[in-house]
Amino acid sequence: MRGAVLYGPRDLRFEERETPIISKPTDAVVRISATCVCGSDLWPYRGINPITQPTPMGHEYCGIVEEVGSEVRSIRPGQFVIGSFFASDNTCPNCQIGYQSSCQEKQFIGDAQAPLVRVPLADGTLVATPAVPKDALVPSLLALSDVMGTGWFAAHAAAVKPGKTVAVVGDGAVGLLGVLSARQMGAKRILAMSRHEARQKLAREFGATDIVAARGDEGVARIKELTDGIGADSVLECVGTPEAMLQAIRATRAGGSVGYVGVPHGVTLDGQALFYAHVHLHGGPAPVRRFLPELIELVWKGKINPGKVFDLTLPLEQVAEGYRAMDERRAIKTLLRP
Amino acid sequence: MRGAVLYGPRDLRFEERETPIISKPTDAVVRISATCVCGSDLWPYRGINPITQPTPMGHEYCGIVEEVGSEVRSIRPGQFVIGSFFASDNTCPNCQIGYQSSCQEKQFIGDAQAPLVRVPLADGTLVATPAVPKDALVPSLLALSDVMGTGWFAAHAAAVKPGKTVAVVGDGAVGLLGVLSARQMGAKRILAMSRHEARQKLAREFGATDIVAARGDEGVARIKELTDGIGADSVLECVGTPEAMLQAIRATRAGGSVGYVGVPHGVTLDGQALFYAHVHLHGGPAPVRRFLPELIELVWKGKINPGKVFDLTLPLEQVAEGYRAMDERRAIKTLLRP
Repeated sequence: MRGAVLYGPRDLRFEERETPIISKPTDAVVRISATCVCGSDLWPYRGINPITQPTPMGHEYCGIVEEVGSEVRSIRPGQFVIGSFFASDNTCPNCQIGYQSSCQEKQFIGDAQAPLVRVPLADGTLVATPAVPKDALVPSLLALSDVMGTGWFAAHAAAVKPGKTVAVVGDGAVGLLGVLSARQMGAKRILAMSRHEARQKLAREFGATDIVAARGDEGVARIKELTDGIGADSVLECVGTPEAMLQAIRATRAGGSVGYVGVPHGVTLDGQALFYAHVHLHGGPAPVRRFLPELIELVWKGKINPGKVFDLTLPLEQVAEGYRAMDERRAIKTLLRP
Repeated sequence: MRGAVLYGPRDLRFEERETPIISKPTDAVVRISATCVCGSDLWPYRGINPITQPTPMGHEYCGIVEEVGSEVRSIRPGQFVIGSFFASDNTCPNCQIGYQSSCQEKQFIGDAQAPLVRVPLADGTLVATPAVPKDALVPSLLALSDVMGTGWFAAHAAAVKPGKTVAVVGDGAVGLLGVLSARQMGAKRILAMSRHEARQKLAREFGATDIVAARGDEGVARIKELTDGIGADSVLECVGTPEAMLQAIRATRAGGSVGYVGVPHGVTLDGQALFYAHVHLHGGPAPVRRFLPELIELVWKGKINPGKVFDLTLPLEQVAEGYRAMDERRAIKTLLRP
């Protein structure tokens, strides 16, 4: 089969790769219905995370189970399934409290931009939909594999509650779905920080009540202005840069919460500034597995439509163009169909 | 009157100072029944926080109201009162959600090692006990002014819950009262990190189930060993050094919580390490005012006895010896009687 392989900065190739097979009795092989490009794929694509050898890419996936290992019990061939980028056993103590992305047996799944993917720990990792979905539902189901689960976790981590005021730092797909999550969780006011027209529009569609185009000090001042001088109750940090993290902390009210899901790059926090900010800080790689059953139900019933973040759909073989479009911010997020 | 004044590293003098008077209609003047030396007083005493001019000291106090300003409504002369080190109006939005130490009108009270202290915003700051207490209760009531309120906040911030496993980093008075707080909140297992015999003994008396003498990597390993390899549910950081903070974060399980109340000195946190640690982080200057009514009731009914942390009682005029004893770790905490 052919799949995406990154060779170096902006050198993404679609080329022959080994076809995955069941290598452990707890594995499943899934035939991909759709995969996509993640904002975090752009870190190595741009050379910010160095690439030392040709690296298969892709960690978001959904599709039809092709084959399962002899010990797999809860998943069977023919089912439509969604999994997270971290395979997890879903039984260890960390999984049991809902932190499957810190599973003691976790394995990163990083080669899903391909027609087939091997999923380790299939029983713990994959969640089947009630039936094989109509094609129109596939983008929203695919979004649950990472981007929607991550936005949802950001809102959870930021303790979003009904009636509260939420600010979202970052207008990438995760930030936009953070807006949708906050709305779904009953936030009264949602301040989306964005200076990009198409993204502002989608933010509003997902439930943003206000758009804040200002950044840095000015952005923080604007959030304070919109919140009677005290800051937002909950702030979702969906970027991962030092600027975004500081902006998030400073835009949060005393006693409020920052949920951060942007993979930190060059972020260091000053202990004393954090101390006096008086905020709650929680984040990390989203434990998507925890949320899959609930999110699948919301998509299945048509209550949320996170697939709207895909504003570019390409055949898988054009994956390189999919990366380019996101790198150049021509696309919010690229969906790929094998 | 005479009170404590710090001139420079280890140069604490007990000397003539201006007698406080009502200077604003919202002030009260309190005649101190007891005051004490705080672990945080040792930062400037040791020259770690530089002293640029002779500085009155002391921020923990309780006593009898001597006089109130014309606008004070809820406090009257003759009452026994306790206040926090931050005066607060208790009405601003930050106070209303329980973060009085981030009150929009907050004022630090820093001259309480004296026979009299002026307390601004008296209505918002001071809480009266049900009656004038017996002398034996005074140490425990004094402890509520900071050290007990701070240990209690650490346990709150670390989300201590019944049945959970808690680790406490720091065996100063705050850490020891963090142990007491965790026990009071129903923790099942409390691991106190200490290598000092008298403090270990008091930790056990306050409810510690295990003592961990190891520090750093070894200390973290020991906590993991005692918690089936996963770490404690809640960790209280009661020191403020980089080592203590890292130890706390690394001893916490994924999804667990660190409550940090040691004023950070030289602490910087690496964003990526924090991200993958998957912990909740919350702390800051304790909003003692929030907890005063509840803690006064617990002391009044004899349910907690935080005054036990005072293992040295001196007349106020010997305040310099009180600092020395703590600096040299001969005393856990010094109580001073005017």
